[in-house]
Amino acid sequence: MEEEINNSNKNNNIKQKNENKQEELNEKQKERKYLITRNLQEILGEDKLVKQIITGKNIHVYWGTATTGRPHVGYFVPIQKIADFLRADIKNRLLYYEYVIKALMTALNVPLEKLHFVRGQSYQLSEPYTKDLLRLSSLVSLRDAVRAGAEVIKQMDDPLLSGILYPLLQALDEQYLKVDGQFGGLDQRKIFILAEEQLPRIKLGKRFHLMNPMVPGLTGSKMSSSEEYSKIDLLDDPDVVSTKIDSANCPSIESGIDNGVLAFYQHVVFPIIGGSIIMNNQQFCDFPSLQKAFKEELIKEMNSKIILNNF
Amino acid sequence: MEEEINNSNKNNNIKQKNENKQEELNEKQKERKYLITRNLQEILGEDKLVKQIITGKNIHVYWGTATTGRPHVGYFVPIQKIADFLRADIKNRLLYYEYVIKALMTALNVPLEKLHFVRGQSYQLSEPYTKDLLRLSSLVSLRDAVRAGAEVIKQMDDPLLSGILYPLLQALDEQYLKVDGQFGGLDQRKIFILAEEQLPRIKLGKRFHLMNPMVPGLTGSKMSSSEEYSKIDLLDDPDVVSTKIDSANCPSIESGIDNGVLAFYQHVVFPIIGGSIIMNNQQFCDFPSLQKAFKEELIKEMNSKIILNNF
Repeated sequence: MEEEINNSNKNNNIKQKNENKQEELNEKQKERKYLITRNLQEILGEDKLVKQIITGKNIHVYWGTATTGRPHVGYFVPIQKIADFLRADIKNRLLYYEYVIKALMTALNVPLEKLHFVRGQSYQLSEPYTKDLLRLSSLVSLRDAVRAGAEVIKQMDDPLLSGILYPLLQALDEQYLKVDGQFGGLDQRKIFILAEEQLPRIKLGKRFHLMNPMVPGLTGSKMSSSEEYSKIDLLDDPDVVSTKIDSANCPSIESGIDNGVLAFYQHVVFPIIGGSIIMNNQQFCDFPSLQKAFKEELIKEMNSKIILNNF
Repeated sequence: MEEEINNSNKNNNIKQKNENKQEELNEKQKERKYLITRNLQEILGEDKLVKQIITGKNIHVYWGTATTGRPHVGYFVPIQKIADFLRADIKNRLLYYEYVIKALMTALNVPLEKLHFVRGQSYQLSEPYTKDLLRLSSLVSLRDAVRAGAEVIKQMDDPLLSGILYPLLQALDEQYLKVDGQFGGLDQRKIFILAEEQLPRIKLGKRFHLMNPMVPGLTGSKMSSSEEYSKIDLLDDPDVVSTKIDSANCPSIESGIDNGVLAFYQHVVFPIIGGSIIMNNQQFCDFPSLQKAFKEELIKEMNSKIILNNF
């Protein structure tokens, strides 16, 4: 809770600074910055990003994802952002799941030729990388490493060493992929902080970090690969999708409980279609209007059927 | 305590098996095996060693030591064993502290030309090594790694990752130094067990492990680099040595307390001189006779003066 307050303070500070810097940007640069940062939940090192936009130098961003299990529709959210990065003429480096990611990109009309897919093994076994890994491991304590991975690595009573090393490897990726910043879900935050804190200690620099919000699962909490009914897999059969949506949690807004179905509209449906939705004979051009209608009970769980038609 | 009982059972089993195998060895092979194994406290995989002696193939043994602080006279014990290995025509690979070890060898008339000094960096940053390290780290749990290093790595509330990785690195050394077995103090036992258990899981084979006893410190417990009065440094001035010996613990045998001074005779003085000692006008040819005289109170703390003359 305390951390949340800190975060929101930090966000305010960032916004403040940003507004000052913003004035130095010309129209084209402002547009570029808008594309890069829209729909993000948090940015670390925004100053760095703004500075780089002003200099007009190339910007390289890295998105690496270590999924456990089959990719689900939650992936459309970061891929929307990558489309934004491309529109802003950022160079992207992507790790893992090349084929699935390419298919998702194609589905969203993202031009593939501007993406650079990197296989970790192409550099992770090199001598300088290993040297840096060992140097880093003599600076990072067990507690710091475990804490950094807490939201990303499956927590076990007696974890494997690979899981403990993981945040160090992801931090080093920034250096070896030669990027200016890293992009990921808000669940990556602690790994990003580790990278910001530890890489400068071995003279490997500090990058900016862009974080998109986490899509809630259909059951209300975080969409999780390991919780079958919280997610829609990209490879699910239509009738499985239908069952999942029918059983999804769609409580009233007053209840204060996360509404997985509405979140799905907000994070997946609206960003993808980019147009309007007809539901219950009404037209909705954006998420707020749909949310308002739901609040006023003009539409109800009915909408879950419509999602189905959209996919 | 239970572990101790298991160990002694294991030792008995090894002895039993060994005696059966022993019969297959010819006189020269028996002599060779005697040289390799004398004065050791424990052997794992003795069968493997005997088998290799029978085939007549070269035997490579690795001794790596990560000392904390200046080397002390306790080092004479493993170096005596290395001299034994050389007498038995074993190839030795040594890591770390090249200069000090060479000086100790010279002091004991050990021929240096048969020793092969290896610097860890010559292979520890190679691609296959890193690959194996990452493979191993995805099999070994945190608890197993911490347990393996418990007696060798300084225990901290929040250890650095390098200390946790250490047992894995030492195990991998066996493969990358291309040795048939590893030699070390009994304090290395848990690391050796980790090597025996984990290397076969990534198809890197299993070696034999030779362990010499730990020399008690002058103050009674283990000789420790970090406990100044428990050890005699190789670089100590004569008067410092004199003070340390004068203040050394030399209780009666009945007391059941470790006697650091007698242990010093047993593990350091007798093996080095290889002859007899005159003490209190009596001649002692081996440690047991000295121990007996001390027990019968024919000699007393007097002897501490004589040690001084020997160094």
